[in-house]
Amino acid sequence: MGEPKYFWEDFQPGDVLESTRAPVTKAEILEFAAEFDPQPFHLDEEAAAASLLGGLCASGWHTCAMMMRMMCDLYILDSASLGAPGIEELRWSKPVFPGDVLTVRRSCLERRVSASRPERGLTRFLWEAFNQKGEPVATLRYWALFSRRHPGPVDGEAG
Amino acid sequence: MGEPKYFWEDFQPGDVLESTRAPVTKAEILEFAAEFDPQPFHLDEEAAAASLLGGLCASGWHTCAMMMRMMCDLYILDSASLGAPGIEELRWSKPVFPGDVLTVRRSCLERRVSASRPERGLTRFLWEAFNQKGEPVATLRYWALFSRRHPGPVDGEAG
Repeated sequence: MGEPKYFWEDFQPGDVLESTRAPVTKAEILEFAAEFDPQPFHLDEEAAAASLLGGLCASGWHTCAMMMRMMCDLYILDSASLGAPGIEELRWSKPVFPGDVLTVRRSCLERRVSASRPERGLTRFLWEAFNQKGEPVATLRYWALFSRRHPGPVDGEAG
Repeated sequence: MGEPKYFWEDFQPGDVLESTRAPVTKAEILEFAAEFDPQPFHLDEEAAAASLLGGLCASGWHTCAMMMRMMCDLYILDSASLGAPGIEELRWSKPVFPGDVLTVRRSCLERRVSASRPERGLTRFLWEAFNQKGEPVATLRYWALFSRRHPGPVDGEAG
């Protein structure tokens, strides 16, 4: 697989990156829902039309999975990613409907070197997914773990 | 679909419920990863063995999706569920490996009537997923929205 392009050093607070546009199909929504979240508003158009959500829409977990794929393609697969211990906050602001086209904006919020493992660093990201109207549909914040290109002291930062 | 079995009233703080056991297969892990999270430690056994995670393991989003399915089968599909606005906190404590067998414990933490829509109620749940060794693998807290069976004032609770 060769050397990753991006290490912890390459994600600086303030950096903002935007994904390409990803259309969401009804078939994908139904397939995910049938396997993982078979609630009527994710699986049955008639029940969904009568529901609070106003129509058939993607499981929130499906939206997260789609965002993950978009971020993998945007930068994670080119990075020295070591995964993440969790998600600080996750918000599903609006339903994602069939035919919606999503983009995800990734912002670097802050970063620090791992106290216990100085060859690793942590970066806190904000991911915001928008539909084709520019409405936010999902938002999350989390700390991602990366290998460092140059382990050692960092200028102006606590080790 | 008939009348739901569980309304907001049926989830009381302190209630604890446990799912049946769900085995996790390598094929499922690979299929989810190929579609949504193609990082090497979710897709490639050799790369995974050399990684921080110690072996091929499920995407954290896959673990969440599996938990969702287990909770759908345990109680959500029998309930007057109206979805959820998000997740307060999500933690992936340990990797989920092929051959692991998961159970999820659901605890009701607290509840309240919706201030803006008194025909709905919110319940704050804790979901904890464990592997066959009893080790926690994932934990999340969130507010779920349900229809009320009997909208109106609730004894001893602010409306």
